[in-house]
Amino acid sequence: MDIATIIGLISGTCLVFLAIFMGGQSSIFVNVPGLLIVVGGTLATCFIKFSMKDVINTVSVVMKAFTVKIQPPEEIMEKMVALGKIAKESGLIALENEKPDDKFSAKAFQYLADGFDEARLTELLKKDIKLTIQRHTVGQKVFKGMGATAPAFGMIGTLIGLVQMLANMSNPNMIGPSMAVALLTTLYGALLANLVFLPLADKLALRSQQEQETKNLILDGVIGISRGLAGLILQETLKVHLSPKDRLKIVPKKKKADSS
Amino acid sequence: MDIATIIGLISGTCLVFLAIFMGGQSSIFVNVPGLLIVVGGTLATCFIKFSMKDVINTVSVVMKAFTVKIQPPEEIMEKMVALGKIAKESGLIALENEKPDDKFSAKAFQYLADGFDEARLTELLKKDIKLTIQRHTVGQKVFKGMGATAPAFGMIGTLIGLVQMLANMSNPNMIGPSMAVALLTTLYGALLANLVFLPLADKLALRSQQEQETKNLILDGVIGISRGLAGLILQETLKVHLSPKDRLKIVPKKKKADSS
Amino acid sequence: MDIATIIGLISGTCLVFLAIFMGGQSSIFVNVPGLLIVVGGTLATCFIKFSMKDVINTVSVVMKAFTVKIQPPEEIMEKMVALGKIAKESGLIALENEKPDDKFSAKAFQYLADGFDEARLTELLKKDIKLTIQRHTVGQKVFKGMGATAPAFGMIGTLIGLVQMLANMSNPNMIGPSMAVALLTTLYGALLANLVFLPLADKLALRSQQEQETKNLILDGVIGISRGLAGLILQETLKVHLSPKDRLKIVPKKKKADSS
Amino acid sequence: MDIATIIGLISGTCLVFLAIFMGGQSSIFVNVPGLLIVVGGTLATCFIKFSMKDVINTVSVVMKAFTVKIQPPEEIMEKMVALGKIAKESGLIALENEKPDDKFSAKAFQYLADGFDEARLTELLKKDIKLTIQRHTVGQKVFKGMGATAPAFGMIGTLIGLVQMLANMSNPNMIGPSMAVALLTTLYGALLANLVFLPLADKLALRSQQEQETKNLILDGVIGISRGLAGLILQETLKVHLSPKDRLKIVPKKKKADSS
Amino acid sequence: MDIATIIGLISGTCLVFLAIFMGGQSSIFVNVPGLLIVVGGTLATCFIKFSMKDVINTVSVVMKAFTVKIQPPEEIMEKMVALGKIAKESGLIALENEKPDDKFSAKAFQYLADGFDEARLTELLKKDIKLTIQRHTVGQKVFKGMGATAPAFGMIGTLIGLVQMLANMSNPNMIGPSMAVALLTTLYGALLANLVFLPLADKLALRSQQEQETKNLILDGVIGISRGLAGLILQETLKVHLSPKDRLKIVPKKKKADSS
Repeated sequence: MDIATIIGLISGTCLVFLAIFMGGQSSIFVNVPGLLIVVGGTLATCFIKFSMKDVINTVSVVMKAFTVKIQPPEEIMEKMVALGKIAKESGLIALENEKPDDKFSAKAFQYLADGFDEARLTELLKKDIKLTIQRHTVGQKVFKGMGATAPAFGMIGTLIGLVQMLANMSNPNMIGPSMAVALLTTLYGALLANLVFLPLADKLALRSQQEQETKNLILDGVIGISRGLAGLILQETLKVHLSPKDRLKIVPKKKKADSS
Repeated sequence: MDIATIIGLISGTCLVFLAIFMGGQSSIFVNVPGLLIVVGGTLATCFIKFSMKDVINTVSVVMKAFTVKIQPPEEIMEKMVALGKIAKESGLIALENEKPDDKFSAKAFQYLADGFDEARLTELLKKDIKLTIQRHTVGQKVFKGMGATAPAFGMIGTLIGLVQMLANMSNPNMIGPSMAVALLTTLYGALLANLVFLPLADKLALRSQQEQETKNLILDGVIGISRGLAGLILQETLKVHLSPKDRLKIVPKKKKADSS
Repeated sequence: MDIATIIGLISGTCLVFLAIFMGGQSSIFVNVPGLLIVVGGTLATCFIKFSMKDVINTVSVVMKAFTVKIQPPEEIMEKMVALGKIAKESGLIALENEKPDDKFSAKAFQYLADGFDEARLTELLKKDIKLTIQRHTVGQKVFKGMGATAPAFGMIGTLIGLVQMLANMSNPNMIGPSMAVALLTTLYGALLANLVFLPLADKLALRSQQEQETKNLILDGVIGISRGLAGLILQETLKVHLSPKDRLKIVPKKKKADSS
Repeated sequence: MDIATIIGLISGTCLVFLAIFMGGQSSIFVNVPGLLIVVGGTLATCFIKFSMKDVINTVSVVMKAFTVKIQPPEEIMEKMVALGKIAKESGLIALENEKPDDKFSAKAFQYLADGFDEARLTELLKKDIKLTIQRHTVGQKVFKGMGATAPAFGMIGTLIGLVQMLANMSNPNMIGPSMAVALLTTLYGALLANLVFLPLADKLALRSQQEQETKNLILDGVIGISRGLAGLILQETLKVHLSPKDRLKIVPKKKKADSS
Repeated sequence: MDIATIIGLISGTCLVFLAIFMGGQSSIFVNVPGLLIVVGGTLATCFIKFSMKDVINTVSVVMKAFTVKIQPPEEIMEKMVALGKIAKESGLIALENEKPDDKFSAKAFQYLADGFDEARLTELLKKDIKLTIQRHTVGQKVFKGMGATAPAFGMIGTLIGLVQMLANMSNPNMIGPSMAVALLTTLYGALLANLVFLPLADKLALRSQQEQETKNLILDGVIGISRGLAGLILQETLKVHLSPKDRLKIVPKKKKADSS
């Protein structure tokens, strides 16, 4: 799983608990009905906003996003250059024996081996990239929607608590604690939105962008192989997908590719 | 009707009622004038913002959106491949006997049977898709508008209540309950917007997008039939509209189509 | 004038007055200096934001938007088909005798009668449509600007009132009423923005969109006539501008057009 | 200088002063440290956000925007038609003697006289228009940034004041006045943003748009002259840049141009 | 380092400290747990939102943005014109001896010397520009994200403090100071966001735009050299990248270039 996300989630939660425990009397911060209205209301709204399938899919999209390791672009580039060499030596049909781990590369090489022309290949793979991004977008939308709804239900819980407190102020000693309880739902909503839902939505967006970049790199590689580009030119074409730092890593390999 | 929407609406409402009843004294939460100003003000603003026709249409658009079942894309794809086979065997004119349930397919097949060429067919069907989306957009706009107006009138109601309370503070015992009543309209506005109007606007947008995807799939199928594509190639072309999970469902049928 | 706007404005205002009168002591809600600062401040800001001409034009744009009746699209379509028939029988020059009410159609027919070719005609009419929309956009911008400024000046008025009250708290009996007066400007700002300015901006946007659709329909009709399309094909081309409901209305006429 | 801006700024300021003076005790509204933190903080943030050059340029851009008179489009059109006539009679080289006031026209005529072809002329002048708009955009960004920062520093000032007041509540008589002083910075921030910064940003955007329209009119005129269009056709082409009202003004001149 | 940023950061911080010290009792404004929850929470959220690499890269991107001096466009233009002259005299291969300081120019000249054609050269350099902008965008996103999170954690800290205070109001003398401490986190969040994070995000955006403009100027220069444009025409083509003020600076050099 993505290490930065775990560090962020744990350290953020610890900080909040620390702030609560340092003030003593931490039991006041636990309010089950308040938690119920914020979490329950957010989930209920989620079901109205999205379809059952989308909400369930989100869980698996998130799981995948955090467990699937994204291949470093320089590795993909090297592999593409090697495959281009194989294709030039033994023909595109030789790519059929390549069994890459990820489904997208597998599909792309299958198309190459099947002799699809460049236009058809590009069209089918581009639509595939677009579709994957769209599916990820649903996951982001679900989290963004929850990030907007949680504070709203936090406020709704506080309003309900305030109305109850204000309507019954016979015992002045209870005003403070009642108001404290009323404020708790606002706190729950703010924490859920700002520490969990909104950051996870942003992380999903980042992951989705990285996956798109990886697939675009594979697509460019496959197009290059289909055109029969020479090793060095294929590498130059693919290198623009790399950041300057990553480009430095492949300098020594450039020599090797040169000699092919 | 859409099951997730019902579950969300009912469970969300129950949660709020639960929170209210658990605090005892639930009668304080009913305030007819407050409800009147929030609901009435929101409706009045709706009439200023939109035309009479748009507001009335919204009701029927919502009803349709929740009752019309969207055909699974894999079924549409299979049907398209079958129709493509019929068209290749008996000519496009044979499609006239096909009577699909939905109007869009019916219209598309009529155009095919009438011998419209690909360009004309695409233009007319694309404009039809665009128009349907535009009509759905009006429904979304109405709900989004109400989701923005309800909290505003909730605040207006609270301000009116506060001014009345502050101008007449002779009896200190009434300050609490008066303020409770004043806060109720803010609660009403927040609940209506966050539990009803805004989630329904999002659901309509989702439905609209699904319908657009379905119609685009039909359009691509009709274009493929008009071009006389072979069964397998038609299926490959249409398969990109399916999610990876849905694609798995059609694997056994692929064999059958192959042999055609 | 647009009936929904009147109903919305009157019923919304009545609801607010009702809420005020039901609380008794309605005279507390009238505060001339407060009204002055909100309305005056909003107008003053309007003059800084826009040019004198724009502000004055807005009034006439609004008046026109609510009084000019938009022709139903099915009527325009029928007329276009009829004119197409005339043009085919007696030549484009015969259109010079047609004197349509609206200036846009008049101009379009004049161009047709003058023998402008399709490209020139399209360019000039499209620029005209764009210009009209731009002028309407200024009106929307003015109202949206006022909808954003009114609550801001409401808050400014409340801040001024609060500072005055807080600086002079010698008489505790005056705190409540003073604060009530201070809150009034916030109420004025919220009412003006949410019941008048923002809804009217939305209505103007709707009107502008309707007018654009009408003019696009006329443009397509004029292009069809200039190309000398047959009656039925012209009708089919124009029909995509109609909603499904409106299309049903013209079914019987389709037969007639068919026989032409 | 732009008259509407002056009227708006003066009347808005007067209204606020009136509201302050009518409450008596107007000296409470003057708080130099509060003013310092809002104005100073906004300026400091401005320097972090933009470069020194941009902030300084903004002043001159604003000055120019309010003093440079924009030529009425109908005048520019007439002049273009007249120049087109001269160019047709004496050749493009004759335009070298024309010395228009504004630099853009001067540059355009110089290009014409130098015999630049249409493509080159269009490219160079369009880039010039784009550049001017970009420079004006920086000015708008500076004002919009200040309009967002001023209320933030108003709130920061109020928070500082509140913390100071709350930490030292030994003298209850000072609570009211201290809180009044704390609120002043919020008032300052709201006034600066809503009465000065944001409206001026909008006015600059409007001016920028007007200048763009004027330059586009000149560009179309120059292209027309370069193509050697006849007077009447040049006028028809340019007339689409005019609003319907402005078009009426040039009707009598149309006759004159006709006879050329 | 960028001088305006330093001036802004220092003067803004000084102003805030001044306001704090002038109120006396400045020690109340230091609250380590409060600072911890705002800064720590913001950083923790940053790790959830972005990848470890992005957060670390941001620091170096910021450092580079403030230390790398951007070459004045008029200097780049002059150099390009001079190089164009060299290329015309001694051929493109002569550019290999030019060793410009910045990597982008070096790469561009290497491509020129290698005899890359215009299309290939443009494609590779444009992708490079796009990539650099994308990397800078990550830095801006990190700062914007922190600018949105800091006030949220400020509010969370205040809510925790308020709940603790309200739950334990036995000693009325502690209410004021406790609330003061609770408000501090809101103040910290507002200061960090409005004085540091958001302005720095804007500055990065500005820097990124300037770098893009510089690289576009170099790109246009390299294309011009590759086309073998004459000195004066190359200068005219590049001059559109300059502001009117900067154009004045190069007038005397124009003569020199003319004679080449």
